[in-house]
Amino acid sequence: MRIVLDAMGGDYAPVEVVKGAVEAAKDESLTIILVGDQARVGLELKKYPKKHNIETVHASEDIAMSEHPVEAVRVKKDASINVCMRLVKEGKADAVVSAGNTGAVMAAALFGLGRVKGIERPAICSAFPAVKGHVVVLDIGANSDCRPAHLVQFAYMGKAYIEKVIGVANPRIALLNIGEENEKGNELTTAANKLLRGEVINGLNFIGNIEGKDILENEADVVVCDGFVGNVVLKFAEGLVFSMAKLFRQQFLQWWPSLIGLFLQLPALRSVKAKIDYTEYGGAPLLGVNGVVIITHGRAKSKTIKNSIRAAAVAVRQNLIDAIARIKKVELPVA
Amino acid sequence: MRIVLDAMGGDYAPVEVVKGAVEAAKDESLTIILVGDQARVGLELKKYPKKHNIETVHASEDIAMSEHPVEAVRVKKDASINVCMRLVKEGKADAVVSAGNTGAVMAAALFGLGRVKGIERPAICSAFPAVKGHVVVLDIGANSDCRPAHLVQFAYMGKAYIEKVIGVANPRIALLNIGEENEKGNELTTAANKLLRGEVINGLNFIGNIEGKDILENEADVVVCDGFVGNVVLKFAEGLVFSMAKLFRQQFLQWWPSLIGLFLQLPALRSVKAKIDYTEYGGAPLLGVNGVVIITHGRAKSKTIKNSIRAAAVAVRQNLIDAIARIKKVELPVA
Repeated sequence: MRIVLDAMGGDYAPVEVVKGAVEAAKDESLTIILVGDQARVGLELKKYPKKHNIETVHASEDIAMSEHPVEAVRVKKDASINVCMRLVKEGKADAVVSAGNTGAVMAAALFGLGRVKGIERPAICSAFPAVKGHVVVLDIGANSDCRPAHLVQFAYMGKAYIEKVIGVANPRIALLNIGEENEKGNELTTAANKLLRGEVINGLNFIGNIEGKDILENEADVVVCDGFVGNVVLKFAEGLVFSMAKLFRQQFLQWWPSLIGLFLQLPALRSVKAKIDYTEYGGAPLLGVNGVVIITHGRAKSKTIKNSIRAAAVAVRQNLIDAIARIKKVELPVA
Repeated sequence: MRIVLDAMGGDYAPVEVVKGAVEAAKDESLTIILVGDQARVGLELKKYPKKHNIETVHASEDIAMSEHPVEAVRVKKDASINVCMRLVKEGKADAVVSAGNTGAVMAAALFGLGRVKGIERPAICSAFPAVKGHVVVLDIGANSDCRPAHLVQFAYMGKAYIEKVIGVANPRIALLNIGEENEKGNELTTAANKLLRGEVINGLNFIGNIEGKDILENEADVVVCDGFVGNVVLKFAEGLVFSMAKLFRQQFLQWWPSLIGLFLQLPALRSVKAKIDYTEYGGAPLLGVNGVVIITHGRAKSKTIKNSIRAAAVAVRQNLIDAIARIKKVELPVA
């Protein structure tokens, strides 16, 4: 299997990206194709013993985090992310992984690969660590304004993803809302709730609304929401964990025995950290485009890159795109 | 000052509500008026030594958490929450505190007290504990669909609240969004950002967009958002803290020295708990109606009720309603 990696994307590119590729290449069933500035990528690769399953493809341009994504993708035809998509489109690779500008990855995927038939809006999907296992939330930022039918499409894509990639059978699908009753919510969610209930006869295991407080309590396997709400919640979660840690640190420093206590808790803290640490995760798939595309954190270091490559490999092996393409048979409501 | 308390509202009414009233009545400058079923309230009051500054007013009906709020408020003219609002409207009390059905409190306030001139949509405002001090977020649930001008009205109301009640001068106002740049966001927030920037010449200290991760980092004093997003974030925060505690508990039980560590950290844990514990807070004011109305948690026990009564007293003393009424002079954009 051939995974193409945007060597120029992310805050630590190309150094950490190349390192992650080398780590992932220990799996001999994979071939990693590094796309980017040949000279810089080559320089990084020299740090490691030569690997037969790492290839490079030159791209003369790259897109910075600060650039306007759609504009940059359109103008810079030879940007690394555009070259990545082209390799998949031409059948020379099976999946793309990038830690670059999220908007640019989305735009490049849409222009380069196109949408799966029946899916109007691709969505970014994230696995949140929950009390037991994980909960898949989508959309977390691809679509800041949605119509009710989009949320139904997200529900089917989330179902396909969790069934194929995480291995949850007949996943429980919930709608993120501000009340549990069907008639609660804003215009979008009250209408989406009605549409989702209508899909139960088509085999969608829609269990109704879920509130913010229940997301991490495994009340559902897949939670759908518009990309604005999903993004705010995702970033708030990141910030809350960080701010809480700061609060505890302030307090621990006020009485030194607390620090001994902290020492005794190290094993527990490490295992909680492993669970909530995004670097352990394999990035967020962009669902609904004609190819496996994994968007990983802009601050991704080698471990995250390696895990994202692995996640991409699983998605390819499990035929995720075929599963999403089959969704259209249920005749999705059109927005 | 006379504070009217909905003795029938909340999961622990009237027991905890009456207890909270008794605790608050230690402040002799206050008179607490308990509104509810005379017999049940009287029975509770008998548990305590007679207090000259606690009065009771009978209400023959009450509204359950499960009832349709607007409907119930309209039909049950003699519901305790309606009687509370009437007392303020008739000048017989200065403020209302209720732990009852949030929708019913809002509806009763709107019907009973009316809106402040110039405010199209009252909003519920909550003080989140942040790394340093607090951050005021509104709307957290009164308006599930908003137009851009509503967010401008929320900004001015949040400013008035934090200036008068919390005592922050020239507060920094931010818009909750999915990117820091002005042009980022959904239809609502990109339009609201533009309107808010236009208010800078009117003295609004609008500092731009803020992302979910920065809410608790004191980057702004007041954060405005629509009530759907605000409610999801508020409830997610509650849930995340709870789920994290569960995660740690699971891990701590796997290696007993962790528990000794926990013991050594008790002082620190207690002080963090005090900071993030909603029972320490004085409830959430409903801003934009013609009277001080404090909505407190449905699970409020006596301490929360007492703190909410105190918060109501501060708002009355600081003439919060006058400050909100003065907003209209800046000629709010109309939605």
